Amino acid sequence: DSSVHEAMKLDKKYRSIGIIGGRTGAGPQIMAADEAVKATNTEILAIELPRDTKGGAGHGSLIIFGAEDVADARRAVEVALKELERTFGDVYGNEAGHLEFQYTARASQACEKAFNAELGKSFGLLVGAPAAIGVVLADTAVKAANVDVISYSSPASGTSFTNEVILTFSGDSGAVRQALIAAREVGIKLLGTLGSEPVTDTVPYI
Amino acid sequence: DSSVHEAMKLDKKYRSIGIIGGRTGAGPQIMAADEAVKATNTEILAIELPRDTKGGAGHGSLIIFGAEDVADARRAVEVALKELERTFGDVYGNEAGHLEFQYTARASQACEKAFNAELGKSFGLLVGAPAAIGVVLADTAVKAANVDVISYSSPASGTSFTNEVILTFSGDSGAVRQALIAAREVGIKLLGTLGSEPVTDTVPYI
Amino acid sequence: DSSVHEAMKLDKKYRSIGIIGGRTGAGPQIMAADEAVKATNTEILAIELPRDTKGGAGHGSLIIFGAEDVADARRAVEVALKELERTFGDVYGNEAGHLEFQYTARASQACEKAFNAELGKSFGLLVGAPAAIGVVLADTAVKAANVDVISYSSPASGTSFTNEVILTFSGDSGAVRQALIAAREVGIKLLGTLGSEPVTDTVPYI
Repeated sequence: DSSVHEAMKLDKKYRSIGIIGGRTGAGPQIMAADEAVKATNTEILAIELPRDTKGGAGHGSLIIFGAEDVADARRAVEVALKELERTFGDVYGNEAGHLEFQYTARASQACEKAFNAELGKSFGLLVGAPAAIGVVLADTAVKAANVDVISYSSPASGTSFTNEVILTFSGDSGAVRQALIAAREVGIKLLGTLGSEPVTDTVPYI
Repeated sequence: DSSVHEAMKLDKKYRSIGIIGGRTGAGPQIMAADEAVKATNTEILAIELPRDTKGGAGHGSLIIFGAEDVADARRAVEVALKELERTFGDVYGNEAGHLEFQYTARASQACEKAFNAELGKSFGLLVGAPAAIGVVLADTAVKAANVDVISYSSPASGTSFTNEVILTFSGDSGAVRQALIAAREVGIKLLGTLGSEPVTDTVPYI
Repeated sequence: DSSVHEAMKLDKKYRSIGIIGGRTGAGPQIMAADEAVKATNTEILAIELPRDTKGGAGHGSLIIFGAEDVADARRAVEVALKELERTFGDVYGNEAGHLEFQYTARASQACEKAFNAELGKSFGLLVGAPAAIGVVLADTAVKAANVDVISYSSPASGTSFTNEVILTFSGDSGAVRQALIAAREVGIKLLGTLGSEPVTDTVPYI
């Protein structure tokens, strides 16, 4: 409806919207949405990161796709939901916190909107929670490979006050992956010292 | 005390204050405070919405009444607490999230302060959590009746990063109620697909 | 690494950093860090207050020490961790909320950075959660002794949307302690009416 469109500050040319929301997780949903916009005739209208109380120290998510045709909006949601299995692959949690690692060889509009990634370039993202662990992971990643830092987010800036540090970076695809793999190794050890062995619920893809 | 008054940025003419706080819920407390200012010689000095960790995806509340006389401040708190039973009537929750619907035929100072409602006019409010459900409810409400949107709040703006979408609107009182009833019907179904049947703890009033 | 240093907006002269993080608690960590900077050749580079979901209605913390020498950074972390036992002494909790009282005869850089305390002066801090209790504690403290209010924080300003009121103040050291003791007495009674007797996990020091 157009009065809601206006209140939501959405461009009226998108007569249909597709919505993805999660109480737990933001990175996996954003990466999944990134694949969905590549695969469909849609655009990302909004990415918002609630500070939900479910799921510990991190964000939930609200992602809105816009499409001129309702079939495109529906298709984008379907693609994104299918991708979630994969994009949750490198999310590792235990009772003390969580770690997340994401990689794409070719960033699209969701990574651009959420993290200022350059379209079409290799892109990496790492999250450490509690934030103190994230600081160490960020340091580890940039020392492990020749990557360019895009953004550094922490409880007081760039997050919704979550207890996380989030680092995003670009570079050639080998370097981005190498930085992520080094940080993942350190992160799993470090978070493991605060609780049980951190595990993923699905299958690592990086 | 006057140095606290100053730090709290309260007008010194209010020598007494009445305080209502909740770890769970903001809309019901605001609507109850709205009745309390109508019924007493007080004003609303502050309405703040903490992101508490109790009560899932939504807000807590802190509401401060000001009065020149301590009896008025006390009376406002009493009226508000008594109204809470009613204003929690259309709050529906399950393990996946919650819904809230509020209506007043005549908005007063609390609705104005919290939501920019026009004094003395019909006013409706709906909340959907997680936020993705709220987007659908907002769309449903404005399609169901001829109402004017006052505000649309989402995790990144107008909320304290809660996983909610909140829509407020005015119109003639029949239209406001019709919009709320339509959204409530859709909301209970939709939230029910993510968990058990959403239920209220008290008695619906709309 | 220097690209992370830059993204974190840290002065490059600090080649080593020490990190303290908590999912639960901010005041105790800040007071402990305050002792640590007094005792070591370090500075406080950052104090951030996540809104973690662990630990109820309050903040977590991320504190970063900077040092030119790695031994100093490590020593600062050691001192701070050792102080935590004491600084958690006047934190009282039950299922309904929590209270916190902190005192130092001589505020240092962490109190200055986090709360705008004057260096070298007596400093007191009180927290009440839920926020409605904090309003009463703030009023009690300033009525009990001749103290100067430094800051008043509430869910909508000065906190990360936590359900807390935080008051900080200075004055002569007897007055600061007297204000804290009066507020503590009222706070324990008041929070106790909402649940079980509020207790500390360690030993009160004020």
